[in-house]
Amino acid sequence: MASLDTLRSPLEFLQSRLPSIPHFDLLAAEQEWWKTEGVAISGTIDRAGTPWVRMFDQSGRRVDEILYAHEYETMLRKGYRSGVVWRALEEKSLIPTYLLMYTISFYDPGVCCPYTVSLGTAVPLAKYGSAELQARFLPQLLRKDDSVWQGATWMTEIGGGSDLGAGVKTVARPAGDTWRLTGDKYFASNAAAELAVAAARPEGSPPGVRGLALFLVPRYRRNEDGSLNYFIRRLKDKIATRSVPTGEIELRDSEAYLLGPADAGIYLILEVLNLSRVANSVVSVALVQRAMADALAYAECRTAFGKPIVDLPLLRHQFEDRLRTLRSAFALAWESVRLLDQVWMERPPYSERYHLFRLVAHLAKYWAAEFAADTAKWAMEVHGGLGTLAEYGAERWLREAMILAIWEGTPHRQMLDGLEVMERKQAHKLLFARLAEIAPAQELKEMESELQRLLNLPPDQKEAEAEAVFRRLAVFSADQLARKYSQ
Amino acid sequence: MASLDTLRSPLEFLQSRLPSIPHFDLLAAEQEWWKTEGVAISGTIDRAGTPWVRMFDQSGRRVDEILYAHEYETMLRKGYRSGVVWRALEEKSLIPTYLLMYTISFYDPGVCCPYTVSLGTAVPLAKYGSAELQARFLPQLLRKDDSVWQGATWMTEIGGGSDLGAGVKTVARPAGDTWRLTGDKYFASNAAAELAVAAARPEGSPPGVRGLALFLVPRYRRNEDGSLNYFIRRLKDKIATRSVPTGEIELRDSEAYLLGPADAGIYLILEVLNLSRVANSVVSVALVQRAMADALAYAECRTAFGKPIVDLPLLRHQFEDRLRTLRSAFALAWESVRLLDQVWMERPPYSERYHLFRLVAHLAKYWAAEFAADTAKWAMEVHGGLGTLAEYGAERWLREAMILAIWEGTPHRQMLDGLEVMERKQAHKLLFARLAEIAPAQELKEMESELQRLLNLPPDQKEAEAEAVFRRLAVFSADQLARKYSQ
Amino acid sequence: MASLDTLRSPLEFLQSRLPSIPHFDLLAAEQEWWKTEGVAISGTIDRAGTPWVRMFDQSGRRVDEILYAHEYETMLRKGYRSGVVWRALEEKSLIPTYLLMYTISFYDPGVCCPYTVSLGTAVPLAKYGSAELQARFLPQLLRKDDSVWQGATWMTEIGGGSDLGAGVKTVARPAGDTWRLTGDKYFASNAAAELAVAAARPEGSPPGVRGLALFLVPRYRRNEDGSLNYFIRRLKDKIATRSVPTGEIELRDSEAYLLGPADAGIYLILEVLNLSRVANSVVSVALVQRAMADALAYAECRTAFGKPIVDLPLLRHQFEDRLRTLRSAFALAWESVRLLDQVWMERPPYSERYHLFRLVAHLAKYWAAEFAADTAKWAMEVHGGLGTLAEYGAERWLREAMILAIWEGTPHRQMLDGLEVMERKQAHKLLFARLAEIAPAQELKEMESELQRLLNLPPDQKEAEAEAVFRRLAVFSADQLARKYSQ
Amino acid sequence: MASLDTLRSPLEFLQSRLPSIPHFDLLAAEQEWWKTEGVAISGTIDRAGTPWVRMFDQSGRRVDEILYAHEYETMLRKGYRSGVVWRALEEKSLIPTYLLMYTISFYDPGVCCPYTVSLGTAVPLAKYGSAELQARFLPQLLRKDDSVWQGATWMTEIGGGSDLGAGVKTVARPAGDTWRLTGDKYFASNAAAELAVAAARPEGSPPGVRGLALFLVPRYRRNEDGSLNYFIRRLKDKIATRSVPTGEIELRDSEAYLLGPADAGIYLILEVLNLSRVANSVVSVALVQRAMADALAYAECRTAFGKPIVDLPLLRHQFEDRLRTLRSAFALAWESVRLLDQVWMERPPYSERYHLFRLVAHLAKYWAAEFAADTAKWAMEVHGGLGTLAEYGAERWLREAMILAIWEGTPHRQMLDGLEVMERKQAHKLLFARLAEIAPAQELKEMESELQRLLNLPPDQKEAEAEAVFRRLAVFSADQLARKYSQ
Repeated sequence: MASLDTLRSPLEFLQSRLPSIPHFDLLAAEQEWWKTEGVAISGTIDRAGTPWVRMFDQSGRRVDEILYAHEYETMLRKGYRSGVVWRALEEKSLIPTYLLMYTISFYDPGVCCPYTVSLGTAVPLAKYGSAELQARFLPQLLRKDDSVWQGATWMTEIGGGSDLGAGVKTVARPAGDTWRLTGDKYFASNAAAELAVAAARPEGSPPGVRGLALFLVPRYRRNEDGSLNYFIRRLKDKIATRSVPTGEIELRDSEAYLLGPADAGIYLILEVLNLSRVANSVVSVALVQRAMADALAYAECRTAFGKPIVDLPLLRHQFEDRLRTLRSAFALAWESVRLLDQVWMERPPYSERYHLFRLVAHLAKYWAAEFAADTAKWAMEVHGGLGTLAEYGAERWLREAMILAIWEGTPHRQMLDGLEVMERKQAHKLLFARLAEIAPAQELKEMESELQRLLNLPPDQKEAEAEAVFRRLAVFSADQLARKYSQ
Repeated sequence: MASLDTLRSPLEFLQSRLPSIPHFDLLAAEQEWWKTEGVAISGTIDRAGTPWVRMFDQSGRRVDEILYAHEYETMLRKGYRSGVVWRALEEKSLIPTYLLMYTISFYDPGVCCPYTVSLGTAVPLAKYGSAELQARFLPQLLRKDDSVWQGATWMTEIGGGSDLGAGVKTVARPAGDTWRLTGDKYFASNAAAELAVAAARPEGSPPGVRGLALFLVPRYRRNEDGSLNYFIRRLKDKIATRSVPTGEIELRDSEAYLLGPADAGIYLILEVLNLSRVANSVVSVALVQRAMADALAYAECRTAFGKPIVDLPLLRHQFEDRLRTLRSAFALAWESVRLLDQVWMERPPYSERYHLFRLVAHLAKYWAAEFAADTAKWAMEVHGGLGTLAEYGAERWLREAMILAIWEGTPHRQMLDGLEVMERKQAHKLLFARLAEIAPAQELKEMESELQRLLNLPPDQKEAEAEAVFRRLAVFSADQLARKYSQ
Repeated sequence: MASLDTLRSPLEFLQSRLPSIPHFDLLAAEQEWWKTEGVAISGTIDRAGTPWVRMFDQSGRRVDEILYAHEYETMLRKGYRSGVVWRALEEKSLIPTYLLMYTISFYDPGVCCPYTVSLGTAVPLAKYGSAELQARFLPQLLRKDDSVWQGATWMTEIGGGSDLGAGVKTVARPAGDTWRLTGDKYFASNAAAELAVAAARPEGSPPGVRGLALFLVPRYRRNEDGSLNYFIRRLKDKIATRSVPTGEIELRDSEAYLLGPADAGIYLILEVLNLSRVANSVVSVALVQRAMADALAYAECRTAFGKPIVDLPLLRHQFEDRLRTLRSAFALAWESVRLLDQVWMERPPYSERYHLFRLVAHLAKYWAAEFAADTAKWAMEVHGGLGTLAEYGAERWLREAMILAIWEGTPHRQMLDGLEVMERKQAHKLLFARLAEIAPAQELKEMESELQRLLNLPPDQKEAEAEAVFRRLAVFSADQLARKYSQ
Repeated sequence: MASLDTLRSPLEFLQSRLPSIPHFDLLAAEQEWWKTEGVAISGTIDRAGTPWVRMFDQSGRRVDEILYAHEYETMLRKGYRSGVVWRALEEKSLIPTYLLMYTISFYDPGVCCPYTVSLGTAVPLAKYGSAELQARFLPQLLRKDDSVWQGATWMTEIGGGSDLGAGVKTVARPAGDTWRLTGDKYFASNAAAELAVAAARPEGSPPGVRGLALFLVPRYRRNEDGSLNYFIRRLKDKIATRSVPTGEIELRDSEAYLLGPADAGIYLILEVLNLSRVANSVVSVALVQRAMADALAYAECRTAFGKPIVDLPLLRHQFEDRLRTLRSAFALAWESVRLLDQVWMERPPYSERYHLFRLVAHLAKYWAAEFAADTAKWAMEVHGGLGTLAEYGAERWLREAMILAIWEGTPHRQMLDGLEVMERKQAHKLLFARLAEIAPAQELKEMESELQRLLNLPPDQKEAEAEAVFRRLAVFSADQLARKYSQ
């Protein structure tokens, strides 16, 4: 069963899929560290559940300190040192970042969340920050040792993240050459980051998404002695990704610095989301590989009817079938990586390639996460009764997968935004042009006409019936791209 | 949106699907109790996690006492009093039992597990127990007050439950007119039951499933003063069904009573599994309804883009589509109830109807559980970020669904056993004969030939390719049966 | 061992100590309910740990709902119905209240905290509230069914509770004929009460305790539709008293109603503390009895060296010795009850008896709590290794005792406040006059002169050396009072 | 407040008490590691609660693997490498071991338990093991790297540890030149040790303690491939010392090797207990220092009435008073260390010095633990309300102290065994001879006659009244020894 062997190592799988792997030795060392150290740390942290927040120190000073497991820091800092953030800006390429993320998230999908939001803080600062702001904050985010600062990207409020135009109620008031933000962020990943970007609405700005702006918010106030610039109301008791503390953040006259023009915030916000949506796809695919690798290890050591169960025809067939789909999912997700790598430094107005990227990113995020949840469920079933026990870890991947399916936009969100970029920017035409290089003409034509049929429907009906077509478009694109990667 | 309203109440849904509901007032009272009391208790118990077992009392006597939440007893005893077990034997019908289970499991899927295994203890005792055994134990299992005994069905050992012939290593040794059992049961639901049925292998019996026998094992030894007849090694930390303590049981020269002939044990074991497999299907369908009801309540109160999200076309379409599938799943599960109700008192050699039942039960168990997991996942996505938080309860249904998907046989098991009953007993012909009364002829013919194509393959290939056909057969049968129920 | 038998029942112990017990049948019923129902509920709640707070409902509305175990309500409402609050005001006597508290806290020391703070809300409202305020709020606090409102007494802020003059920073601003409060309460027992009394500082009032006032704060705002009038920042993870949710409360322009004159707040605050300090003493004594009762039950069933360990001379001696001290502690605590019952309706300027009460209350609170912690520790040791296991419950009483030792003022606080009332009000002279009726003259004289020696020291030295004398005074008074009760 | 400063560092305190500190640099490095790394790890482990045991691996093989937090290993291995075990045998002195233990247990009292029981395994092996047994097992226990084996000392069974003669029911049956043990150990610290010593009763041996023997029991069987030689039934949910997994152990025909003569087991058992009883005293004193250090840190940063509370006279007086008692307790505990260091290689029949050691060890164990619990309680009170919150860690020391008070014998045990060694071996005469060198003659004489009065009482009365005299003897000896150390 030669082909299933690539499941056991993220790096081997990457090698089997990509023509060349930059920084191969770095990735090999990363994988080795995870195998020998990281896996045990990650397991400990998952079992330990949600960390505590200590709001006040003994003297009664508000500190909002998060009480991690001590070794969480060890695990977290490893990736920063390896360059999951600093390489992107130093090497002017996202490829090393996403290769690292694939490798790391095979072992711990959650820890890529802090990396992603740190990247999502550094990039807009580097693109849109004034020289002074950059000088003041960028070096800390790009440090190569354990004193590196972490970032965070806080958009969502209690009203929900789908409809940001209505949901963001945080107000920004000018204060000299800076701003003051007041509001509550509800799903604030990497609470306690040293520097965050936050969406807010400058006083007097128009309603809806057009009135949003993006701000930089440091953890501590500038002129006072170490007092907090924002507060962590509490950490949320999530079902997974215990490697990242997600909290509710209170901004209370918090010092903030505007990034980019005040009326272009929505573009900056979406650029930040691009980085995390692609990360989500990559991590989802790595999770598929991991769940399959665990199922494989189990199926090789578990015996029924006189042989290892991996040798029973039905199960073997499922493994092989699912491996094929894994390759397709990877191809689609990696296509979104490659496209993003080409457009991530664009500013509005954007190129056509940017819109193509957006469509591919929606397809990839949607489908990779669906497939991850489905595979995690299947891997639990392979484990039989042990799959339902906290003790054996198989159940963890389904919890992690469900977070991936929901974060950075549920399936509904991906479909509707995908629909929008097709209707407004004709992004599907760019996609079909791209696929024309690799897909059989007849199949492509059928896919095109099916999609066109959808797009021609009246608005409500179009939205109602979008799911099936969107799914087929994702699968079709993935399969075609995989075929190309396999050649 | 009249049709979605039936989602809110299990009894209303049952009314919309069944021509008549025996014991309607009883079910209405049951539902009312759950709405006003049980829901809160069930939530508390789920949050409290795995109960403790106290092995020794203060004087050092082994007691293996399970420290439930106090109100667990309140919730548990309710269903027994209502007759989830005693009615089956008193009214000689399983219909009231499964109607109660549907109603109850809408609120707590786990608590139906104790009921099912208590039924699975009472029924073989009533069918196969000697007059003396029945006189000694049956009245306690059928009591109508809170002193009722609970049963348990312990088959699986650490080697796994799929291959019982190899997996059951518990040995039974004759001891006068009783037996002594020694071995370890691994997934022992309702640990601490007053009376269990357990699979064991009489010394000297042939290997494989033919060498198994079924025994009755009381919690306490007969002639000694209250000393334990089996031991609870520990409770397992499951991801869900906290309403039932599942443990590892040590049988150590445990007093036991043979049920039926010593060489027919495998038939008795399968008869017990019939009861729980059908329960599993019914509970799975109720869980679908519950997850949808919660999603609906959320979607009605949550606003985005200026309206309740249930009014967004994509989401509304999903609700309506999924409601249709829920009806199909119910029709298939209920067909297995009706068939079981006709054959549950049969003994080997069985009728043709019994084999038809077996096929339908495999199809229903497989597909209802798949659909339950998928719907629970979707309901989490409807909740957006809140779906990933322990606080809001949406994530519970996916945990519960995964247990349903695995218990009483994973999908692999259902497919392979379904295949077997088709090959050995031609059960599919009976199914098609049944469907011929209601299904369009052309569709039926296509389904038949597709299945026949599978059955004609060489053994390994047949098994390898079984999944897709088995699924289509389940969906097809469900849809046809649903159409009939709707008329 | 007849005398140890009174340990087993709080009511029997009360009967052995008090000449008559009003409402005996009520107390007997209360005890019976706890024995048969409450004990199991209390154990469940302790094991379940700190309850959750759900801050937002599904629609995103802030609700600050506390997710108790469902049966917590059953246990909690029992005492309210029995009259732990309403009887005090209806019968114009605190005796029934504290008799109920003794009986109840033998089974659950924590649940008397909600009762006490509800009483501490109703009493100042009844004494100092305007007719309009009383009409609006008092009936709800005195309801005799499960719709009764709960109260809460929120004084302490993050700066600590010892130095209220410096610690209370919550500001009260006039708003028409009501007030608006803004500030953070740190140890807010019974978070989520329908009505609280809170200490705050009216704008412009003098610094220190003289600038404090006491306000009534309802849970919901008046004119808006159900919106919260205060917020629960979080529940605190205490080591015990899981029967009461203690939180951090955010007052944010919270509607409030002044009680009494704005410049007499500190008197009202101290009157509220009187109620809870006495409750604390009574509960501490009941906890001693409970820990001893559990140790006795253990020592009777556990065997070493051929007999139950209760029959080993060292242990039997300890039981008998400790029972004597329990009687003394009870006598002192009950003296504080009787005195409070005589003075609780006084207003400033207070009588001499009020100052005597204050001294006795400090002595009783200090010493009963010390003895409770010591006895709980000893009871753990009697249990041997089992005493260190969560499973057997012996360790719970030490956790509970430590909360009693710290709440309502640590030992330091009792000593210093006791010292103050002796110096300022010569309360010790009143005490010695009282003791002269019952104590041997010579012993009394020695005690007086020892105390006088302390009071004559320079201030810092007096404070430094207060502990030993204060303790001796407590023990001496207790022993003398106990002798009288025994007659 | 110069003198309180020694509280902050265990090594500084040792320096202030002992004329010379061997291996000072080693201890300094150990302390430094704990300050910078260990403290955080220890806190994480305490918060994480009881570790899990995974009984079966995925293939269904019984493995009884304990799922520690990953970094637990880091913390644990540190002390072994530093020589807490190997130095004792290599340097033929226990002084370095107990110096290390004092230093380490200031930071984590629990981790000294594995060290102690490993020492308690290595020492009897080195004293009583055959050359072959030593060659086979000793090197692993004395390794200086992370591959070091751990030991364990399993005596107690469910019947309790006080009356070992009746409590040990584990049976040893000869099997060639080895033995097979069958029985259940109830408080088995360091479950999963590679090598344990266990008390058992050879078949046919006399009843009572004279019939006990001591055996070596490895974790894995010799001739089979890695199969377990004993089983961990479960880990116990203790209130503290989360740094050591304490389990219930099932010996089932476990391979075992006799240590020493079969009829002298009780002597070997007591020699093992000597090592741990002295460790318990040393750790108790270190815990006192730690609790005081934490209270000091708090009292320095917390303000009331306008100054840090440490400057309030009452609190300052308590600190100073308690520091004096700490020095006394240390002197007594260290006297037991020095005496043990002189007698630990003795074999029966023992010298007089050995009996003196026994008395001092009982006094030290009793009183150090009492003082530790009292100080931990006081330190919580110093923290005020924060002392009752899990968040601030003050409550941990009381939990830890209670385990110290109970393990290695409750106070009752120490008194009765102390009484016995005075009556049987006249050990008090040796103690008074020792104290005559340093104590004022008059005080000594009073102490002697008070003790003699007790010893002259009839047996039951003597036991009943032992406590007060035993306590005074402990305090008196401690104070005298402290005076000497201070000179």
